[in-house]
Formats: sequence, C-alpha cells, structure tokens
Amino acid sequence: MNLESQWIAGFVDGEGCFHVQVNKAETAAAGYYVLAEFVVTQHVRSIKVLHAMRKIFKSGVVRPCKDNIYQYRVRKADHLRTRIVPFFMKHKLKTRKRLDFMKFRWILLLMERGEHLTPAGVEKIQAVRATMNGKQALSSPSS
Amino acid sequence: MNLESQWIAGFVDGEGCFHVQVNKAETAAAGYYVLAEFVVTQHVRSIKVLHAMRKIFKSGVVRPCKDNIYQYRVRKADHLRTRIVPFFMKHKLKTRKRLDFMKFRWILLLMERGEHLTPAGVEKIQAVRATMNGKQALSSPSS
Repeated sequence: MNLESQWIAGFVDGEGCFHVQVNKAETAAAGYYVLAEFVVTQHVRSIKVLHAMRKIFKSGVVRPCKDNIYQYRVRKADHLRTRIVPFFMKHKLKTRKRLDFMKFRWILLLMERGEHLTPAGVEKIQAVRATMNGKQALSSPSS
Repeated sequence: MNLESQWIAGFVDGEGCFHVQVNKAETAAAGYYVLAEFVVTQHVRSIKVLHAMRKIFKSGVVRPCKDNIYQYRVRKADHLRTRIVPFFMKHKLKTRKRLDFMKFRWILLLMERGEHLTPAGVEKIQAVRATMNGKQALSSPSS
C-alpha cells in the first residue's frame, strides 16, 4: 500500500497522537521515567494502513490495543527524533494537533539533553505535558 | 489555510463519515425520506480546517454539533454527486472507509434515478446502509 506524505499528515491530524507519559520509577535518576511515543490508532478493519506507516517510517510496531482496535506506535527516542519529527516538520499538521507536536518535539529535545534525568527537567516536562492533547495548563507547572 | 488534496483524503479517512439516514415520513412518496450527507467532525480548537474544507468544496456548512464539537457537512445531493464523490474517486481513501464511500456513491446513484421514491428502492438503500460505517449486514435486507 502506497501512502503519500500529505495523506499521512492528514490521517495523523485525525487519528494520531503525540503522547508523553511521566511515571514514578524508584530506579530512575530523577524518580520519574519519561516515555514519549507517537501513536496512530485504528480499527482492525484498516490495520493495513498502520503496517504501511510502519514500513514508511521503518520504525515502531503494530500492536493490539483493545477489542478490534490496533495501534501503530514508535517509542524509540532516536527514531522519534530522526524519523517522526522531521517528517511532520516537512509535512505540516493543519489542526491544533500541530501545537501538541511542537511540544512533543520540545520534550524530545529536553530528553536528548538528558534533562529528563533531573528533577527540574522532569518538572519542565510535566508542565508542558499538562497542556497537551486537549488538556489545559495547570495553575502551577509543578503541581 | 491551504489544504492539499491528499491531506484532505487522509483527514477524511480519519475524521470523515459518509452517512445515510432513512427516516419515516408520511409525506414522502415511499413513506420514507432518504438523507445522504458527508460529514467531518472536529473539536472547536481546529474549526479552521472545517471552514477551509467548505471553501475548497464550495459547498456545505460548518455547524455546532455538541459541546465544543463542530461538523462540516454537505447534504445537497447535487453537490455530493458533483463535488464530493469525484474528489474521493480521484484522491482515494486508504482505510476501509473507502468501502463506505463506494456504498454511499451507489446510494447517490439510486437517488439520482429516483429509486428512493419507491418502496423497493428504499428497501435496497436500507439494505446497503445497514452494512455501512462499521455495521454488519442484517440477516434480511428488509428488516
């Protein structure tokens, strides 16, 4: 299946998500583990487009998510930085998801600099994350 | 806002719907009124893309749907046939939504021939409609 770049941008504007998780982890340097992932969700009926995207980005996995729902996801930070981010810098998202993408990119930059390994860095990431994917900013970034 | 055709195809593969309603109507020739509509739904945050689509197709309206959710929709049968259908014949959908689109196109053809004004035509439309948008075919087309 051939997917044009603009089709992918449009599809991700609809079905994609730039997601950041911050979870407590006693073994992590700052007490928290930061996970960034690019996810596209789809009913099993259309699983072919997820596999086609995996082939195009040469990264990630297609995994079942819940009943008949599958996800294509990329978690490898290096691939997010070198394959996913440049793609959406070139083929711009048109919805407000572009703002989430820009925040996601910024968090990846912080992670590249190792800031997610410090309490101050985790706090910065938490503050930005709290404003992503339809959430409103918290009154205090550290809350 | 400029939207490329392939972006629109990808976005509609995610957020669009080719929808057919069949409602009882005593005043209708066959006792039923058939309504075909092309709908794209989006949070108010990204309402700009809906207006941009309306401008590109030179048809339809952008209307509030429910809390903070808006829809771009085209209901005029003539515009569906001459603007929406040719667009997605040229810029093909990639997900299983393409099957719904093909059924939608077929229903529009039946309507163009006036078949929705006869009980047999309404029955045909009902049978196809029952298999669209994730629904399974009913055991009897007339049920």
